[in-house]
Amino acid sequence: MAVEPDSPDEFETIDRLFKPLSEGAPEAQGLMDDVAVLPARMGQDLVVTKDAIVEGVHFLETDPLDLVARKLLRVNLSDLAAKGAEPYGYLLSVSWSKRCGWPEREAFAAGLALDQKQYGVFLFGGDTTSTPGPLTCSLTAFGWIPHGRVVSRGGARSGDLILVSGSIGDGVLGLAASRGELSALEPARVEALVKRYRLPEPRVTMAKLVRENASASADVSDGLIADVGHIAEASGLRAMINLEAVPLSRAARAWLAKRVDPAEALLDLASGGDDYEIVCCARADRAETMIRVAQDHGDLTVIGHLVEGEGVAVSYMGDPMRFQRAGWRHR
Amino acid sequence: MAVEPDSPDEFETIDRLFKPLSEGAPEAQGLMDDVAVLPARMGQDLVVTKDAIVEGVHFLETDPLDLVARKLLRVNLSDLAAKGAEPYGYLLSVSWSKRCGWPEREAFAAGLALDQKQYGVFLFGGDTTSTPGPLTCSLTAFGWIPHGRVVSRGGARSGDLILVSGSIGDGVLGLAASRGELSALEPARVEALVKRYRLPEPRVTMAKLVRENASASADVSDGLIADVGHIAEASGLRAMINLEAVPLSRAARAWLAKRVDPAEALLDLASGGDDYEIVCCARADRAETMIRVAQDHGDLTVIGHLVEGEGVAVSYMGDPMRFQRAGWRHR
Repeated sequence: MAVEPDSPDEFETIDRLFKPLSEGAPEAQGLMDDVAVLPARMGQDLVVTKDAIVEGVHFLETDPLDLVARKLLRVNLSDLAAKGAEPYGYLLSVSWSKRCGWPEREAFAAGLALDQKQYGVFLFGGDTTSTPGPLTCSLTAFGWIPHGRVVSRGGARSGDLILVSGSIGDGVLGLAASRGELSALEPARVEALVKRYRLPEPRVTMAKLVRENASASADVSDGLIADVGHIAEASGLRAMINLEAVPLSRAARAWLAKRVDPAEALLDLASGGDDYEIVCCARADRAETMIRVAQDHGDLTVIGHLVEGEGVAVSYMGDPMRFQRAGWRHR
Repeated sequence: MAVEPDSPDEFETIDRLFKPLSEGAPEAQGLMDDVAVLPARMGQDLVVTKDAIVEGVHFLETDPLDLVARKLLRVNLSDLAAKGAEPYGYLLSVSWSKRCGWPEREAFAAGLALDQKQYGVFLFGGDTTSTPGPLTCSLTAFGWIPHGRVVSRGGARSGDLILVSGSIGDGVLGLAASRGELSALEPARVEALVKRYRLPEPRVTMAKLVRENASASADVSDGLIADVGHIAEASGLRAMINLEAVPLSRAARAWLAKRVDPAEALLDLASGGDDYEIVCCARADRAETMIRVAQDHGDLTVIGHLVEGEGVAVSYMGDPMRFQRAGWRHR
């Protein structure tokens, strides 16, 4: 398909909007070369992750594009942090939909510029194209980690504690709030939830703590129970989660206070996705260190432990709960 | 968006179709970990490239999905080859459209399996999702090259010859043939062109030759004149192209023979994209070596040279030609 006469030109998009995002990074080759070149770092592994987001699936058509771009970058940085890797740079593919005129593209690039500064990353390359369908973006993020130190899902041992960063459930509540479904809450709470949904805060500052102490780790994207389930399965263990211990934001606590069945409501929060917190496992002594150090950059909370066996058991105040959620699947 | 009851499950897609593509590559972590881990290679740079393709833009809705997948991989390998890098592996994001049921996904994975064997690469990771829009795929390819040896667009010198691999114009003719627009040609020729359009042959075996001899290089994706223009601009030189020297396939020659104005027709071929050949520059003595060695794996042909100045000059049989094509833009 040829470039439409009225639509912004892809070359101009790259030149004026994306090239500035690569300045300062020799890896990007000035975005002139179709490739980026990453020199090896002695004793380091390169950790790479790739996630795509689609309008109408992962974000709403009404979401401002600066926030869409920042969320795209952040969900990938969240994966790196959960593995213990330090952010380095990224490649970007954007398929612009018809709504993406020049102002929308400018907003998209401005969002990236903001977060590049915050997280210390640069645009290394990629491509842009137009699409007759919904706006679709894919990002490949790179991070560095000392050789052999990546924290996988499969390293947990029986007896390890399960810890989660920050708070859980704001992702799924934020989506509901964005759709105007939480009108019973105070406006300030609704706003906090919408903000959290649109702009997650990846736990980049916890990467070092994770790689030095955790036996297994993942980010909470599919939902807390689902992601703990992935760790349990990969480690060949059974996870025991205490729902009442799951940390909640003030907004989520306000929402929970209005529920008839708090146990079921907590289960909903622990089954929703898009929290972009870290859930990890560690021996009790290591967990203690982690909790102490983590106080400086978002809390870590013990929500359970691992035992011999398989699957995930969820209890509330000591009572086992039955649950069946699409969020969690064997894989 | 939740997974539709009738649509294939993304976990199952990864487990049954994509996991086998990662077998043998420890980098992939068994596709269990949201990330891939690439250990450094001493004295080597990692070359990365990322291209997305969209149904209705880069391929037709009627194209079989095994060929779509192979083309996606091949266009990225073409970028690596043009820079002199050896293929290593790739990450994949697929946003499945409604037409992508299980058989289509199987075909997609089968196409990748075939080409992985041919080019010696493995799937390292990525993600799959569904989309209400057209099938959209993005691939990030990795290659290795000795440190500092990547062949950029900007290294050509005045007096260098311009060489192109294989044949030019089959990409644009193949697209026309796919649309049934070349019915005047013999069926065998039409078939050859369609095949070439659907399944380009990246010049992976020329990577070593390019990195050891070329001063500048690019793959022919935007169109020969456009891509030579990018090299000229990046090198701060003027490119002189002799149209009559541009190498053509038998099918393209058959098409050309029916044209009233061969010069204009050649200009069309040199302005079309999607050839996925290599266009590179080299000193005359290096070019001689390259042409001799290249005979074993697809020819190289001299089509012009570089002089002081800027822009691209195109001549046919010694007569300068005027041209204006959307394919070529300053950037």
